[in-house]
Amino acid sequence: MDLASLVGLVMCFILVIFGIVFDGGSIVVSNLTSFVDIPSAIITFGGAFCCILIMCGDFKDFINKFKTASKVMKIQQNEVIESIKTLIQFSNIARKEGLLALENQARDLDDPFLRKGLMLIVDGTEPELVSGIMDTELQATEARHKDAIGFWENIAAMGPAWGMIGTLIGLVNMLKALDDPNSIGPAMAVALITTLYGSLLANWIATPMASKLKSKSQEEIMAKEILVEGILSIQAGENPRVIEEKLKSFLSPAQRDEFGDER
Amino acid sequence: MDLASLVGLVMCFILVIFGIVFDGGSIVVSNLTSFVDIPSAIITFGGAFCCILIMCGDFKDFINKFKTASKVMKIQQNEVIESIKTLIQFSNIARKEGLLALENQARDLDDPFLRKGLMLIVDGTEPELVSGIMDTELQATEARHKDAIGFWENIAAMGPAWGMIGTLIGLVNMLKALDDPNSIGPAMAVALITTLYGSLLANWIATPMASKLKSKSQEEIMAKEILVEGILSIQAGENPRVIEEKLKSFLSPAQRDEFGDER
Amino acid sequence: MDLASLVGLVMCFILVIFGIVFDGGSIVVSNLTSFVDIPSAIITFGGAFCCILIMCGDFKDFINKFKTASKVMKIQQNEVIESIKTLIQFSNIARKEGLLALENQARDLDDPFLRKGLMLIVDGTEPELVSGIMDTELQATEARHKDAIGFWENIAAMGPAWGMIGTLIGLVNMLKALDDPNSIGPAMAVALITTLYGSLLANWIATPMASKLKSKSQEEIMAKEILVEGILSIQAGENPRVIEEKLKSFLSPAQRDEFGDER
Amino acid sequence: MDLASLVGLVMCFILVIFGIVFDGGSIVVSNLTSFVDIPSAIITFGGAFCCILIMCGDFKDFINKFKTASKVMKIQQNEVIESIKTLIQFSNIARKEGLLALENQARDLDDPFLRKGLMLIVDGTEPELVSGIMDTELQATEARHKDAIGFWENIAAMGPAWGMIGTLIGLVNMLKALDDPNSIGPAMAVALITTLYGSLLANWIATPMASKLKSKSQEEIMAKEILVEGILSIQAGENPRVIEEKLKSFLSPAQRDEFGDER
Amino acid sequence: MDLASLVGLVMCFILVIFGIVFDGGSIVVSNLTSFVDIPSAIITFGGAFCCILIMCGDFKDFINKFKTASKVMKIQQNEVIESIKTLIQFSNIARKEGLLALENQARDLDDPFLRKGLMLIVDGTEPELVSGIMDTELQATEARHKDAIGFWENIAAMGPAWGMIGTLIGLVNMLKALDDPNSIGPAMAVALITTLYGSLLANWIATPMASKLKSKSQEEIMAKEILVEGILSIQAGENPRVIEEKLKSFLSPAQRDEFGDER
Repeated sequence: MDLASLVGLVMCFILVIFGIVFDGGSIVVSNLTSFVDIPSAIITFGGAFCCILIMCGDFKDFINKFKTASKVMKIQQNEVIESIKTLIQFSNIARKEGLLALENQARDLDDPFLRKGLMLIVDGTEPELVSGIMDTELQATEARHKDAIGFWENIAAMGPAWGMIGTLIGLVNMLKALDDPNSIGPAMAVALITTLYGSLLANWIATPMASKLKSKSQEEIMAKEILVEGILSIQAGENPRVIEEKLKSFLSPAQRDEFGDER
Repeated sequence: MDLASLVGLVMCFILVIFGIVFDGGSIVVSNLTSFVDIPSAIITFGGAFCCILIMCGDFKDFINKFKTASKVMKIQQNEVIESIKTLIQFSNIARKEGLLALENQARDLDDPFLRKGLMLIVDGTEPELVSGIMDTELQATEARHKDAIGFWENIAAMGPAWGMIGTLIGLVNMLKALDDPNSIGPAMAVALITTLYGSLLANWIATPMASKLKSKSQEEIMAKEILVEGILSIQAGENPRVIEEKLKSFLSPAQRDEFGDER
Repeated sequence: MDLASLVGLVMCFILVIFGIVFDGGSIVVSNLTSFVDIPSAIITFGGAFCCILIMCGDFKDFINKFKTASKVMKIQQNEVIESIKTLIQFSNIARKEGLLALENQARDLDDPFLRKGLMLIVDGTEPELVSGIMDTELQATEARHKDAIGFWENIAAMGPAWGMIGTLIGLVNMLKALDDPNSIGPAMAVALITTLYGSLLANWIATPMASKLKSKSQEEIMAKEILVEGILSIQAGENPRVIEEKLKSFLSPAQRDEFGDER
Repeated sequence: MDLASLVGLVMCFILVIFGIVFDGGSIVVSNLTSFVDIPSAIITFGGAFCCILIMCGDFKDFINKFKTASKVMKIQQNEVIESIKTLIQFSNIARKEGLLALENQARDLDDPFLRKGLMLIVDGTEPELVSGIMDTELQATEARHKDAIGFWENIAAMGPAWGMIGTLIGLVNMLKALDDPNSIGPAMAVALITTLYGSLLANWIATPMASKLKSKSQEEIMAKEILVEGILSIQAGENPRVIEEKLKSFLSPAQRDEFGDER
Repeated sequence: MDLASLVGLVMCFILVIFGIVFDGGSIVVSNLTSFVDIPSAIITFGGAFCCILIMCGDFKDFINKFKTASKVMKIQQNEVIESIKTLIQFSNIARKEGLLALENQARDLDDPFLRKGLMLIVDGTEPELVSGIMDTELQATEARHKDAIGFWENIAAMGPAWGMIGTLIGLVNMLKALDDPNSIGPAMAVALITTLYGSLLANWIATPMASKLKSKSQEEIMAKEILVEGILSIQAGENPRVIEEKLKSFLSPAQRDEFGDER
């Protein structure tokens, strides 16, 4: 589990609770009851998610995209550095024993993208075709990532929109019945709660989710670009030293130090 | 009919009704009357659609673009997977019996894009020309899709704009005649209704429509890109195994599993 | 005259008048007087247009860009289909009688872009040069269109901005002299009128104008791209059948049907 | 001096003064005193410019960018048409007397960009290198222009932001001391003045400045592109007639008429 | 230390303090107490930073990105001009003594990018490979810069968002307990403080930081592009005079004067 994201999510929740119960210097736990309003939650979250459902147009798609949230929580490893090491190792094997010697290595790989690439060069596919197939897959992956990011960005837009719709409904109801001046305050408080819910949905959940998926996607795409570069270099029979130099260009100075240390 | 989109649309409507009638813990159906205001509807929806009419400048165009809504509701099939299977089948035929053998197959096809492409290679058109013609058609299709998406995005922008214009008119009328303090509440309620209508037009209808058309367009364009890729590979006489590998690069891991299962 | 745009413009005006005079179930024509405020108009429209004048920096340029509005109102014809037919006809002539035979045809053409292109190939200019000259002209045309669109988009941004400036001035004046509570309402009504004027300038006039110019520009650019494609194909001596196929790729399915019908 | 920009700037100022003193049908000059508030000006303009200073990080840079304002005021001439004429004249000289004959002409030129280009071809530099050097210079110029435009866009964003910060400070101060109801009005008026100042800074000065610099930059870049195109054509020894045709493609129909007239 | 940025930061702080204590013509230092509200600070800054933490998903990453702020404060030198001089010097050495003579020079260099490039050409790497490796490194650097800029832009978006959430919570609490009219003012003042905090976080700190990092990044990327261009020219054995001309194209007129003066 990705600890920092979880800590951030939980801390935001605690901060909101704190902001609610801390009232004029003392803790007033009963304040919490003013902030739990089921009908407001129904209209804000219901409206936002039903609109997302219209956009998806497919229950399975809707649920699958929600599941991308779990991806955000996965711990991230030093995959990039591992990939480069694997590629250099393979380039050494290919140099000494020929491309065919990679077949057994490739079969044991977990990563389907790397496995596919290696199988293509073992099969003697032409370099342009290998490059074309890998690029198409890269672009299709990127398009799927963008889709998932767009899903959360849509939630981030729909939350405040339906929060405002809820507030407008509450205000109209309140203004139509302005008989009792004492009821204005509480009625307006209820009307504002949908706006608060919508803001929280957008800024606590959806925007951070979209933002994190975006950076995870960038990392995954870069890792795949390194694999494509490496596979094509192995196929071209380039010198392992040169391949290492080439692939290390993708790394940040910090990662390069780590790369050197681990060797 | 695309069920999830319909469910989303209807559910949003029910949620709004629920938000209106659920007032302070009890159901007050009479609230609904405050939310139906014909003049407000006329100025908000009328203003928004008349502006869209200015932008279209052609009644036929205006109506045609509205009809794109129906496209959103069409059930989506596994067209991509079917297309790949058809292309592989055709590449086998072309390999065994020559390109001319595809002529009869092509004539029976429903998809005009695929039919046109196959007829071009059956006629012995040069590869660059085939690729140029197909790409032009792809781009022209994409431009038409963008046009339709822009239509709904314009509605999503014009709805709230005219809602605000309506509210401003209502407020000025109300403020000019501030004699009776008791009339302020109901007058402001009426003024706010145009804002609510504009918000609903944008967030309940237009934005989800634009968003869904966008994702439908992406799918259609990708399906056409697969067809172009496949047709050019068939013309080049590539190995059906290689063509399959190439076209499968467009698929997501889930679609690839499905592809394998169905075979 | 482009009827739909005109109808849209006029209908919006009628809707605004209707929104103003329809007050609480009855028609109150005297309401109109509250909405005509010369000083408010001066500050909103004056401010917006003076800012646009700063941006233009040239009175002639300022007036020319206003005149682009007239372009929006011009009736649109099936130019694209006509162009394709002309090009096919020319390609037949060129095939049978040689490129030089096009010289007389070209001289009679109204469209300076097509005429220039034909004269270039009649003069025996090298294909790359023809393509370079036509592309430069296309891009320069597109840049000029963008300029005109930007002009209306700037108005759409400046209208509400100066509306708000007017409202702020009105509010400060009002708040400084809060002696008479009865004057608050009417004073605030006047303050809000600049915001209303700014909104109308943006959403009734400028945004639809920019949006329509954008779609007109796209059509004109596509029409010119077809001409470039056609002229280069004629110069290359391609088969008229192939040229027709190529140029028809630009058309929508509906236009293609029309193209077939008219032949 | 660029008259229209100056007229626009001054007219906006007059309109704002008019909006302030014209109050309920009569001219109330004393209103002006409510709109001059030194502390409000200090926080709005001070805050905005200090933030811009943080972004620049260099006093010289900060002052230089302010000076770009003077560029906006320079009168614009028909440089493009002049450039084309000069280039055609040079191409005639080069054709008749050889490239070396351009050396004396080049030395007398005011425009360093054109001079540099001509010196490069006189020195016999390879065409790709000439094109590379000129393109780099073009891009570096464009980047510097973008920088200056960004400077004014940042002011346009920071003005309203610090206006709002000032208003929030004023509101909090006012709300904390709500003893005397009569003081609310004037206190709020003062609080709103920072918002007005911020709006004026953005919409009267910064946005028009950014917008005008943008269009001046586009013109300058196009003029330089024409020079690059012309210089490369002269080096390639192209026919002056063809060069004229090529360079005229950059012109608008109006400029082309002018070009013809002046000859 | 970068003086102007520091002066800007401190001046903004002083201006805010001034805006707070200057109240109706006199200095009221006690006003400051109304603007220090620990719970408001906790919810605004806490919420914003916890959301950023969710986006980062890694404590180390979170802290590293904060440290990019220190980069903003570093004094900027005339690195670009120095780089060009070094490159010209190296091109002279390479011309006279051969590429291998650069090995010793390269070892003493502080800049790892230039050192790597020189070592590659000393090692006799093929030009395309050198260019590929340097470009990859350039793009990876640019991606890392964008990441850091995005970090501050996210803070600039999250600050006001959580400020508004805090204000909504405060308003709901206040409206629920509207018994004592005298408490409305101070309660609303407290509610507004979170909005003020959010605005300050965005407009005083995060936006200027992002903007400055962006311009620093552009400079660094341009400096690296000059190095790549220079290294490839040295490898190609170009004339030092031509290299100087080429690299000077990147400079602004002012920098060019400086370049000439220093020589």
